[in-house]
Amino acid sequence: MGQKVYLSNYEIEDALNLYFSKLKMDKEKEIIDTENSAGKITSMPIYSKISSPFYNSSAMDGIAVDSEKTLGANEKNHIILVENEDYIVVDTGDPIPKEYDAVIMVEDLIEVDDKSVKIYKSVAPYQNIRPLGEDIVEKSLIVPSNHKIRPVDISAMIAGAVNEVEVYKKPVVGIIPTGTELVEPGSNLKIGDIIDFNSRTFKAQVYEYGGIGKRYEIVKDDYEKIKDSVKKAAEECDIVLINAGSSAGREDYTAKVIEELGKVYIHGVAIKPGKPVILGEVYNKPVIGIPGYPVSAYVIMENFVRPIIENFIGEKPYKHKSIKAILSKRVMSSLKYFEFVRIKLGKVGDKIVATPLSRGAGATMSLVKADGILEVPQNIEGIEKQSEVEIKLLKDEEEINNTIVCIGSHDPIIDVIADLMQVKGGAYYLSSAHVGSMGGIMALKNNETHIAPIHLLDMETGKYNVSYIKKYIGNRPMALIKCVKRIQGIIVPKGNPNNIKSIKDIRDKKLKFVNRQRGAGTRLLFDYNLKKLNISPKEIQGYEREEYTHLQVAAAISNGDCDCGLGIYSAATMMGLDFIPICNEEYDIAIFKEFLNMESIKEFINIIKSDKFKEKLDELGGYDYSESGDIIYI
Amino acid sequence: MGQKVYLSNYEIEDALNLYFSKLKMDKEKEIIDTENSAGKITSMPIYSKISSPFYNSSAMDGIAVDSEKTLGANEKNHIILVENEDYIVVDTGDPIPKEYDAVIMVEDLIEVDDKSVKIYKSVAPYQNIRPLGEDIVEKSLIVPSNHKIRPVDISAMIAGAVNEVEVYKKPVVGIIPTGTELVEPGSNLKIGDIIDFNSRTFKAQVYEYGGIGKRYEIVKDDYEKIKDSVKKAAEECDIVLINAGSSAGREDYTAKVIEELGKVYIHGVAIKPGKPVILGEVYNKPVIGIPGYPVSAYVIMENFVRPIIENFIGEKPYKHKSIKAILSKRVMSSLKYFEFVRIKLGKVGDKIVATPLSRGAGATMSLVKADGILEVPQNIEGIEKQSEVEIKLLKDEEEINNTIVCIGSHDPIIDVIADLMQVKGGAYYLSSAHVGSMGGIMALKNNETHIAPIHLLDMETGKYNVSYIKKYIGNRPMALIKCVKRIQGIIVPKGNPNNIKSIKDIRDKKLKFVNRQRGAGTRLLFDYNLKKLNISPKEIQGYEREEYTHLQVAAAISNGDCDCGLGIYSAATMMGLDFIPICNEEYDIAIFKEFLNMESIKEFINIIKSDKFKEKLDELGGYDYSESGDIIYI
Repeated sequence: MGQKVYLSNYEIEDALNLYFSKLKMDKEKEIIDTENSAGKITSMPIYSKISSPFYNSSAMDGIAVDSEKTLGANEKNHIILVENEDYIVVDTGDPIPKEYDAVIMVEDLIEVDDKSVKIYKSVAPYQNIRPLGEDIVEKSLIVPSNHKIRPVDISAMIAGAVNEVEVYKKPVVGIIPTGTELVEPGSNLKIGDIIDFNSRTFKAQVYEYGGIGKRYEIVKDDYEKIKDSVKKAAEECDIVLINAGSSAGREDYTAKVIEELGKVYIHGVAIKPGKPVILGEVYNKPVIGIPGYPVSAYVIMENFVRPIIENFIGEKPYKHKSIKAILSKRVMSSLKYFEFVRIKLGKVGDKIVATPLSRGAGATMSLVKADGILEVPQNIEGIEKQSEVEIKLLKDEEEINNTIVCIGSHDPIIDVIADLMQVKGGAYYLSSAHVGSMGGIMALKNNETHIAPIHLLDMETGKYNVSYIKKYIGNRPMALIKCVKRIQGIIVPKGNPNNIKSIKDIRDKKLKFVNRQRGAGTRLLFDYNLKKLNISPKEIQGYEREEYTHLQVAAAISNGDCDCGLGIYSAATMMGLDFIPICNEEYDIAIFKEFLNMESIKEFINIIKSDKFKEKLDELGGYDYSESGDIIYI
Repeated sequence: MGQKVYLSNYEIEDALNLYFSKLKMDKEKEIIDTENSAGKITSMPIYSKISSPFYNSSAMDGIAVDSEKTLGANEKNHIILVENEDYIVVDTGDPIPKEYDAVIMVEDLIEVDDKSVKIYKSVAPYQNIRPLGEDIVEKSLIVPSNHKIRPVDISAMIAGAVNEVEVYKKPVVGIIPTGTELVEPGSNLKIGDIIDFNSRTFKAQVYEYGGIGKRYEIVKDDYEKIKDSVKKAAEECDIVLINAGSSAGREDYTAKVIEELGKVYIHGVAIKPGKPVILGEVYNKPVIGIPGYPVSAYVIMENFVRPIIENFIGEKPYKHKSIKAILSKRVMSSLKYFEFVRIKLGKVGDKIVATPLSRGAGATMSLVKADGILEVPQNIEGIEKQSEVEIKLLKDEEEINNTIVCIGSHDPIIDVIADLMQVKGGAYYLSSAHVGSMGGIMALKNNETHIAPIHLLDMETGKYNVSYIKKYIGNRPMALIKCVKRIQGIIVPKGNPNNIKSIKDIRDKKLKFVNRQRGAGTRLLFDYNLKKLNISPKEIQGYEREEYTHLQVAAAISNGDCDCGLGIYSAATMMGLDFIPICNEEYDIAIFKEFLNMESIKEFINIIKSDKFKEKLDELGGYDYSESGDIIYI
């Protein structure tokens, strides 16, 4: 089953230092028009070629005079000056001829006739004159070497007659997607295909870092074909990225190809994710093998490819802004690796709370949803809950401060609300994680979240939500924002091919079920129904298969992967599936009373009361919004 | 002399609100390829079209099995599985066929032969399987409306089969430079010409704000020609900028042209600089008249054009990061205007010190040198020295923290040092202001600066610098970093046409002199010499004309504007001028002793001791660097 290759385990710093010491990269320079140079980095100091202004000019609208001729003028003793003899009219910026040495402002003139004026005060030499070189002096430094050119620098350079400027050239970065399973976006997908999105993302990242990405065609897992593509890219580009095949599996050819064409310096770095990175060189060009898993790829792009590009263009190393936050959950970590943990941040009360993104967050979506990265050093087994940690920010601090954190039960309407908060370019954001109703209650208790959507039936009273809050959240004053009533039921394929009529049928017909995760209100509802029917979970095929959202359940049924699952009406209709109603339930928003005063929460309530929201609910179907936005104090 | 037009005096907020209420701007949308969408802003919510993965796949390298067949396997009871009967081999990411429901990792297999393996533990259903939709679920929200697309969003969108995305279109912003005096960069310059750099800077700014700049040809100050150009631009573009002619002078046609073609809503806002802005509309396109003075133009671009472009593309209003700082000098301000004051910042000791840029800083160069902007509200007469103020940052806070502030006497070698600090992409910066030696001493006393270059002769002892420091800086321990010895003398045109031999000749031959500003060591040296010769300043023609640097003095002579000035040898040679030596002097760096421990100061001392620095001094000529970098404690 293939040969096992052991990867090295360099520390990240050591790996970068070793790699940079081996690379023979030469920064390339180019001369470009100054007017197109914004964002480029100077490769030499820029000195002004002329003075600006390069002549004495008027600083005012008025008349240019010889100051000596104005001596003695005062309120009692007006002096008459004659045009073209004693003065000429000048506007701001007009040059001052040699015979004049001062300007009198138009406001200080009394018109006598077309050709003469009276003045009632004298001017000092050089008064109201902008002297030559006032702005920029010939031969003076405008910007130093290694300076990133801004629009204002362009002003000064062109004013100083520097019309061309030598800058570091952007590197062309070749991107080679490899993998027999890869297909282009837009292809007709068949089972086993993977859409090649990494290479597109790399191209956008390369641009962000200051390079120019050049995508090559997808190469199948074929040693010779990969070799040909790497050769071509190394000839045509300044830096080459190969994705993926960087691991040590059966069809991981990247390292061997680089080794044959050039040199592999490092294969394996003690980081997680991202360990199987390859740092090599072909034809004196850096060639980097990047793992295929999107989060690993992201870590390698940020921590290896970015510094290489920055070095190439003379850019200072990028530093993420960071923020101190309180960790809401213990983070486990391996002693062997430096770990990068995706974090959700929220300003809950007066503290920034950092919550590691759960497994349920997916891969690419976890990067979309992450607000920051927690770096856990090697040789640390984990970081305790409630520790203060430093989080590298992936979003604006202001956005984080204005984000409502929403952790709890899932409903597609949460997405609708998140969008409605933004649709007018609003100042507030909604960021949600789906961990089920009980998870939401725990997140509230832990101060991880502002709001928790829940739908928890009290079996004794037949009422929803209130008793759970009372039971689990102690004495702190709480409120419930009424949201929607919705219908739960069995989601089945279109046409209900197994003719399911009740939960009992799932067991009796030995159907493949898909369940929700522990703590989800919908799972509790299923368990409650099983108990009532005296059915053991073991009798349900697929009871162990856990999904995190109604849509995930519906997708598993829609794809023919399962026969049925419990979920809400809107999830079934969104996926074009059929639905057997079981019960109505109340899906509400639990919140600490004090948070009701937050501007963002007021906006949230406005939205769920709005016609726009109700329109969207009607489109989805299966919702009753008659109480939306009402508040119950607990 | 032309008709006086009175400008309005709207407050900045009111002006913007009124203007936005009048504009009929429609955000334009376009559909673009997702892979090219980074940096664009979504005009609608983006929902995933498919699940990703869209099939169950292996999370490990290993074998796919039916979990039921593994039941009962343990260390004592191995179970043998046969390929293609009980399992198939899968790599990470491979799809799992329907008949299997779990994966056993390759590490947990014992090879029996080519076609069979032994297992010693069972697997649970769905173990090591990445379920369909684990990353993204069909129909779930990827990013909301009004979201600026990042590379990671591109990953998720393409993975979700969203290959095209609707975004706000960048506006095309027409830029019309007007002015009879304007010439293109690279033209043969004659007195009165002004190089058109504003329009180039606008183009770079428009790009930074998110638009596409389109420069039109320079239009002379001719009403009809300006009208034609504005008409054309309003037809072809989404927004039009006219520069300049926005004021109320004789040849300021902009407002009249806009009024004829469309509507002027506002002409004049209570801000300084930037008051004579025009906010109008032609063919339903925003048309803005921007003043010509570069600093005014900058204020208008940042405060009016930026919000208009942001609004067009759905971008959130840009907020400069700001920082609290201690004002080192009183800022005077008019009650009539909201003022924008350019500020130099420095971390001196543990405080960030804000020093308003002096008049000598020039116009475009003051924007290049500014670290931030202090906004002084209307209805305030000024802000007292030592007040805590909020400064909007124009540079990275880290750059400011790593910048040596250098205020004092000018020498071209300060530019050389500033560049040498950057030439290897170093972490430290040097930012200088030229206020003369005494100005430097006062800046030290005021805690405005880290270092002060000075050259002050003690007339009694004939020694330089030390006695001044003792006299003016009280008891705080000081040091002097020895820098260079240099030659002062009379700078005269090439060939010394007036045959100057001594300072006395300046009076005797009635030559046009150019002086340095009050507090400059070179001015003190001149005064000292005049006194020795019993010459009154009144006898020197041009004594009142003050320049801030040696290069400015040399430039005034080089351009034939003056006959002579006092300055250093290197300034004369840089401008190709002749030089009559007067004396040698010691140009040293005064510093508080405690700052010698700063890493940036250590780097500064390394540089002035370096061969590279000495090479540059030899190129300039007239410097003795035998003691460069030596430290004298005072």
